[in-house]
Amino acid sequence: MSAMNAFYAQSGGVTAVINASACGVIETARKHRNRIANVYAGRNGIIGALTEDMIDTNRESARTIAALRHTPGGAFGSARFKLKSIEENRAEYERLIDVFRAHDIGYFFYNGGNDSMDTAQKVSQISKNMGFPVACIGIPKTVDNDLPVTDNCPGFGSVAKYVAVSTQEAALDVASMSKTSTKVFILEVMGRHAGWIAAAGGLAGSEPGDAPHIILFPEIPFRKAAFLKRVRECVRKYDYCVIVVSEGAQYANGRFLAEAGTRDAFGHAQLGGVAPVVATMVRDNLGLKYHYAVADYLQRSARHIASATDVKQAYAVGKAAVTMALEGKSGVMPVIKRISQTPYRWKIVSAPLTRIANKEKMLPRRYISTDGFSITPACRRYLAPLIRGEDYPPYINGLPNYVTLKSVSVKKRSNTKFVV
Amino acid sequence: MSAMNAFYAQSGGVTAVINASACGVIETARKHRNRIANVYAGRNGIIGALTEDMIDTNRESARTIAALRHTPGGAFGSARFKLKSIEENRAEYERLIDVFRAHDIGYFFYNGGNDSMDTAQKVSQISKNMGFPVACIGIPKTVDNDLPVTDNCPGFGSVAKYVAVSTQEAALDVASMSKTSTKVFILEVMGRHAGWIAAAGGLAGSEPGDAPHIILFPEIPFRKAAFLKRVRECVRKYDYCVIVVSEGAQYANGRFLAEAGTRDAFGHAQLGGVAPVVATMVRDNLGLKYHYAVADYLQRSARHIASATDVKQAYAVGKAAVTMALEGKSGVMPVIKRISQTPYRWKIVSAPLTRIANKEKMLPRRYISTDGFSITPACRRYLAPLIRGEDYPPYINGLPNYVTLKSVSVKKRSNTKFVV
Repeated sequence: MSAMNAFYAQSGGVTAVINASACGVIETARKHRNRIANVYAGRNGIIGALTEDMIDTNRESARTIAALRHTPGGAFGSARFKLKSIEENRAEYERLIDVFRAHDIGYFFYNGGNDSMDTAQKVSQISKNMGFPVACIGIPKTVDNDLPVTDNCPGFGSVAKYVAVSTQEAALDVASMSKTSTKVFILEVMGRHAGWIAAAGGLAGSEPGDAPHIILFPEIPFRKAAFLKRVRECVRKYDYCVIVVSEGAQYANGRFLAEAGTRDAFGHAQLGGVAPVVATMVRDNLGLKYHYAVADYLQRSARHIASATDVKQAYAVGKAAVTMALEGKSGVMPVIKRISQTPYRWKIVSAPLTRIANKEKMLPRRYISTDGFSITPACRRYLAPLIRGEDYPPYINGLPNYVTLKSVSVKKRSNTKFVV
Repeated sequence: MSAMNAFYAQSGGVTAVINASACGVIETARKHRNRIANVYAGRNGIIGALTEDMIDTNRESARTIAALRHTPGGAFGSARFKLKSIEENRAEYERLIDVFRAHDIGYFFYNGGNDSMDTAQKVSQISKNMGFPVACIGIPKTVDNDLPVTDNCPGFGSVAKYVAVSTQEAALDVASMSKTSTKVFILEVMGRHAGWIAAAGGLAGSEPGDAPHIILFPEIPFRKAAFLKRVRECVRKYDYCVIVVSEGAQYANGRFLAEAGTRDAFGHAQLGGVAPVVATMVRDNLGLKYHYAVADYLQRSARHIASATDVKQAYAVGKAAVTMALEGKSGVMPVIKRISQTPYRWKIVSAPLTRIANKEKMLPRRYISTDGFSITPACRRYLAPLIRGEDYPPYINGLPNYVTLKSVSVKKRSNTKFVV
């Protein structure tokens, strides 16, 4: 079998460790030059394949590729771009295969979430039907931790660590000032549908009375009266109250708390987050002094406080993707299997994309306390190993030394232009 | 001279390294048991002295005291409580001296900002007048970096590092997604009066085109048209725009941007931050997709990413305070003097509190670029060494191992009760 090229693309929201997966793919591919001549990376994800805009990773030094392991963001550019269904837009899929054919691409590594796994699965099918079979391997990535089958998703452990550490630190701040200052602190975290990230805030405390005192999950319908009662109780007992709220927190009727109909001075709807809404609620009903933080992108780009477990797993799925492709597999994703809880041990196995694509794994009810405001011991056991270990990037002059690629483009070979 | 006790209190907003100063005070005092028998710490700052509610630090192990060096927040509790002027409330000052006398307190170490330096100065005076002279030493602490005389303030370097690193990381995230997602990212940072913290965001980039592309300082009157023009230019040139905005950003007439008259669904004024206001402005006028983060307390409690320079200086001012007191000084503060820029070298000298109390050091105009949107090379030279070096706390199971004190109360000796 002569060597083919591989295509790698990043998809959807980036994470602190998605480049560690890219590093795993490229370093492993480079060990098999007889089978994989080069890894072409899509500039801005799959759009790079459709528009034949690819980055030649062979032009990057071993040192640069190694540095991807500690660099957050998506080094090749990612995209929020979902291929339509085959019925709706067969041309997109055919275009992909045309580009793959023009560049001798025999391997397709797609690093993303549920949607991307669906795309990878379809490309695998269509490439066969079109007589140019490409080994299509999905590589899991999502801070939301909502992919099924896999024990957890690369990207999540580092956000979880960031949120747990930030909650712990801010709580120390609030506790030391509560006598004369802020009584209620609210931290808004990501997770529009699933409460995994909010749950991670619960790791900050382990003793009764420890912060966070309240977690608001998207899975638990928000009841204002019960919430305010709990805040009042906390402030009475501990003199302060720390709240971690998921951006997806919602009422029983499915309306997000963040859609509070807030308007600016001109009456325009203001697209705020959920934290100011909860804060205003606390002020108006309890008259307590509050502060809030919105972690937003900081949480998913915080490579400086990445989980060592997460970095290892992100690299491992990238590496395993290449190994699986070389074993002749297609339409699969490397998944993380927890083989032991104490000590925590895991391994990578393969799972068919059909079992993963377009499915969401929500935080199970048994991971949330009966009252709906905190995590259970079972949840803590699940989450704890995922944030374990520190993996600091190198620093120069007080700042992380994150790498920038040369990003040399692969010469175009197709005669047609494709507009996305 | 027989041994007296010392009183130590934390004041105002806490920082990631104020406990490192406490550590410097207590460890140094313990080396001079013949002069300082014990350090009593005010529970909740100066309120602890007024109410005779003090923590016996002799009951804390050497190991616990050493761990203060890496623990954020205020371990003894801080307070936003300013003593009134002597004319208005002489009773408060007399009460302080009464408590000091009852507990043989001959040294007063007050760890705070401008207001606290004023208090320390007054206590020094009054104690002499009342025939019970107490050595009063101020210890600088403020994330705002706005104390005069000292080159910089302990607490600032770590916030500066947090803001620079977070800006750098979030910028990588935004840059990798801008093709199909967020174009404008806004990070709100502290600094109601002075733009030092916002300026630190400027350290994230060093090449033209690097983020942050715009910094909004409180010192520069906000001009909406010029701001929006700059955002549009950035997006055209780089495809994205990263903005660091100080909570104190204001219009020429002194109105804060944060006071945008935002109202919730019920018409109540919503106390939002400046980030959502700027974000709404970008959306309404330019129609660009945005995200925003509000760092709030996370920035000043982020001991996990503290500046090693800052930690050293925070410890050094605590240590120097004790040394100065033992040398018979009073009414002074240890200040940081920069003695060399390259290589960066500093030392601690003493300055009279009268030169420091109630004065604010603003970001000088020459540290801000002519257009008002970025920092100058001179500013960069000043800031760069302050964020240098990492000083990681120890971790257990993926979380920083921050210390909690036993906080045993000192037995009351005064017969009177004092209500604050």
